[in-house]
Amino acid sequence: MEFTVEQIANLLGARIQGDAKSKINSFAKIQEGRSGAISFLANPKYEEYIYSTQASAVIVSENFVPRQEIKATLIIVADAYLAFSVLLEEYARVLKLHKSGREEPCFVAESSLIGENTYIGAFAYIAENTKIGNNTKIYPHVYIGANVEIGENCILYPGVKIMQGCKIGSYCTFQPGVVIGSDGFGFAPQSDGTYKPIPQIGNVIIGNHVDIGANTTIDRATMGSTVIADGVKLDNLIMLAHNVEIGSNTAIAAQTGISGSTKVGQNCVIAGQVGIVGHIEIANGVKIGAQSGIMKGVSEEGKNLMGSPATDLKSHLRSIVVYQKLPELQKRIEELEKRVLK
Amino acid sequence: MEFTVEQIANLLGARIQGDAKSKINSFAKIQEGRSGAISFLANPKYEEYIYSTQASAVIVSENFVPRQEIKATLIIVADAYLAFSVLLEEYARVLKLHKSGREEPCFVAESSLIGENTYIGAFAYIAENTKIGNNTKIYPHVYIGANVEIGENCILYPGVKIMQGCKIGSYCTFQPGVVIGSDGFGFAPQSDGTYKPIPQIGNVIIGNHVDIGANTTIDRATMGSTVIADGVKLDNLIMLAHNVEIGSNTAIAAQTGISGSTKVGQNCVIAGQVGIVGHIEIANGVKIGAQSGIMKGVSEEGKNLMGSPATDLKSHLRSIVVYQKLPELQKRIEELEKRVLK
Amino acid sequence: MEFTVEQIANLLGARIQGDAKSKINSFAKIQEGRSGAISFLANPKYEEYIYSTQASAVIVSENFVPRQEIKATLIIVADAYLAFSVLLEEYARVLKLHKSGREEPCFVAESSLIGENTYIGAFAYIAENTKIGNNTKIYPHVYIGANVEIGENCILYPGVKIMQGCKIGSYCTFQPGVVIGSDGFGFAPQSDGTYKPIPQIGNVIIGNHVDIGANTTIDRATMGSTVIADGVKLDNLIMLAHNVEIGSNTAIAAQTGISGSTKVGQNCVIAGQVGIVGHIEIANGVKIGAQSGIMKGVSEEGKNLMGSPATDLKSHLRSIVVYQKLPELQKRIEELEKRVLK
Repeated sequence: MEFTVEQIANLLGARIQGDAKSKINSFAKIQEGRSGAISFLANPKYEEYIYSTQASAVIVSENFVPRQEIKATLIIVADAYLAFSVLLEEYARVLKLHKSGREEPCFVAESSLIGENTYIGAFAYIAENTKIGNNTKIYPHVYIGANVEIGENCILYPGVKIMQGCKIGSYCTFQPGVVIGSDGFGFAPQSDGTYKPIPQIGNVIIGNHVDIGANTTIDRATMGSTVIADGVKLDNLIMLAHNVEIGSNTAIAAQTGISGSTKVGQNCVIAGQVGIVGHIEIANGVKIGAQSGIMKGVSEEGKNLMGSPATDLKSHLRSIVVYQKLPELQKRIEELEKRVLK
Repeated sequence: MEFTVEQIANLLGARIQGDAKSKINSFAKIQEGRSGAISFLANPKYEEYIYSTQASAVIVSENFVPRQEIKATLIIVADAYLAFSVLLEEYARVLKLHKSGREEPCFVAESSLIGENTYIGAFAYIAENTKIGNNTKIYPHVYIGANVEIGENCILYPGVKIMQGCKIGSYCTFQPGVVIGSDGFGFAPQSDGTYKPIPQIGNVIIGNHVDIGANTTIDRATMGSTVIADGVKLDNLIMLAHNVEIGSNTAIAAQTGISGSTKVGQNCVIAGQVGIVGHIEIANGVKIGAQSGIMKGVSEEGKNLMGSPATDLKSHLRSIVVYQKLPELQKRIEELEKRVLK
Repeated sequence: MEFTVEQIANLLGARIQGDAKSKINSFAKIQEGRSGAISFLANPKYEEYIYSTQASAVIVSENFVPRQEIKATLIIVADAYLAFSVLLEEYARVLKLHKSGREEPCFVAESSLIGENTYIGAFAYIAENTKIGNNTKIYPHVYIGANVEIGENCILYPGVKIMQGCKIGSYCTFQPGVVIGSDGFGFAPQSDGTYKPIPQIGNVIIGNHVDIGANTTIDRATMGSTVIADGVKLDNLIMLAHNVEIGSNTAIAAQTGISGSTKVGQNCVIAGQVGIVGHIEIANGVKIGAQSGIMKGVSEEGKNLMGSPATDLKSHLRSIVVYQKLPELQKRIEELEKRVLK
């Protein structure tokens, strides 16, 4: 496939600076641009590359002011990152034509209600009394338990497992190996030191436009529901325990774990490898740095936290600086003691 | 299904305070109680809700002394948490009737010995010379390698993989995506900087009443066995390396990793995201706080540890308090220096 | 199977000290040796066991000097660990005869090119336009997406998922549940607080002799490729984000996560539960201790790092020592203040 810069600019509603007839046949990062490629500049950290890139065209934001000459044709838009993503999306839509129909052998219980224009891959398993909405794509090796409901336009990649009774909204994409509705980790300690499993009879409810990364696991509630609200984005290998609730449009990076019954607000941003204890609430808009340990609730909206146990980000950074000088501080105390306590 | 408070109290051997004829048709957390629901109060943190709950009945422990009036009928038992779990279990037994028989297509090697009243889901794979005990349920997409033995009354949820030669006891439940018997991470460094895989010819031996969470992985031993004793409870996304041994009734929370050849005692409680180095021993009854890093053996039984590297819990908490005041301490040292060293 | 010490010594090109006719029928760790077993001593930490082991033979390195009498026959080689692994490998080769041929039902698209002497297990799924090299073994429940290429002599254990367009070299072994080519975690924040998925149209390219542990996930690039070079060894439950590049012969332990676009050099050794931020470069030969957090690039080759945020290993260890004495330091400051500021 090949397009002119002009065609692309028309699609994006963009202004052109340079050769509008230039031919584009591929995408590239700006530091790897080559003739025929289109790239973009959004992060100022990469500005230097725009002056040397071999890319034929670069999408830039209208507030970008070049500090030297640029060979590439510029495609000028309000938000370069957004425009580039629109372009990629158009391209991906053409590229990634999802299948439809059923591949055999698959297992579909007679009592299930399967929408139109769905895909059910070979070796997919759909148990009784399930509902699958229109245009939803069920890849091979997906397991869908009894009484599950899944909305429209979802993609369940290979090996996704949705256990009995869970409810999934529309426009959700689950990467391979995601587990929804595994039993929560609930055991009653007995007097002889053994544990007795507490039956986990709740479910997981997931809203619309939720994306979940590979091999992430979300446990069902003991009672009631583990709830993932609309627009939540979860990365790979995350663990959400029973009865956790995640507010809308919160994004969580890889390998973070949230313990049972904790409620996270809306529009939070939680970095990777964070651990959050159970039974606390975290306000809307809170940001938590990587590897932090959250030991108590956070009631202040928009707060920035870091560290294990986490404190206010600025305090954390100040403590870190001193921490790295501890041996020196110790010597200074010894020196003072020599003078004072002699 | 609907029951009277009286029926429930009889089942639990409980005393009733309030309306014994009250009708119960659902379970609810105390803070979410509604008419017709039964709830329980075990954690004093939730006491306030018992005075306002709309639940029709609440199970309480006999040592609970109300500080104000309670509308709900009280069901009084020795241990409220335990009694509630017994009730849930009864309910779950009715609710979750596991299938039996074989769904087609499944793959069962002729040389395998399959017990009575088992369930083998569609797309399950059972290799040669395996033994599966009575009442064990093998869900769809489960893989069982050659020479594996699994006891009675186990549940292997979808996508569980038990690799060749591993031995599993009875009454074990493995959540979706569990991997037992993957090769250990053993490589001999060569003089040219490459690594040569060390064959991992051991297996994994798992006792009775072991529960394992979604997507947790347990590697086979290099030689001999990785051993998980009776009653061990493992949460999701845990990594146990080759030749690890976990003592009976030890519970480990999500995302913890234990390196090769480490032996953990009985009745230990290990929180989430803990890392433990290889080739050490941890005594019985040790408790380890979340995100701790255990760098050396722990010989004292029942010790409480936290931090990375971990120390005694109390020392850790004291160091944390000072840590968070480090910038202030630094200023105090500077002030002292001004006075003393001028 | 039974061998004499002499036969084993011949295979290894080793010198014998003791009874060359001694019979060997099993392998054992030196601390668990029993009559008929062969063991090895490589780690000086285990030296004490060689004086009491019941093993019939022990492989030792030629630089080992016994400090007391040893009952076992010694098999003396240049490198005991290496020799033992050669022996195990020979044994494993006999033991672990991989299957070949196709088990039914499996799904193999007509347009795929499948090499000779391959194994395709039941319920494996191979999509269109794939190439699978000679001697490669595809276990049950493996998913291979469209346009994937896999070299020769690879082993893909049950439940491995290779998503569309990814390229795998030869002599690679992927443990159960590995996910290659899941979509990267890329979302453009919108002004209303929602996120818009950025299409991830790149792939993952993996070299030769790459080993990957159970349930590890490697995301495809946004554009271009996530690259894992020859000889890389990855443990279980690792997360490599989009556009990460890992240099040849780098080894990474379990549960480590590396954020998007970071480049790790060759021959690095990264311990478990490490987190590395995105968009940085790490030089060749760098060693990173367990649970470290790497917040910025590392340009010095062979550097040893530890801590979160990580510093030079020696500084880290010095700071740790003082950290654990913080409450005492605080008291010393208070004492000084009493004297000086009174």
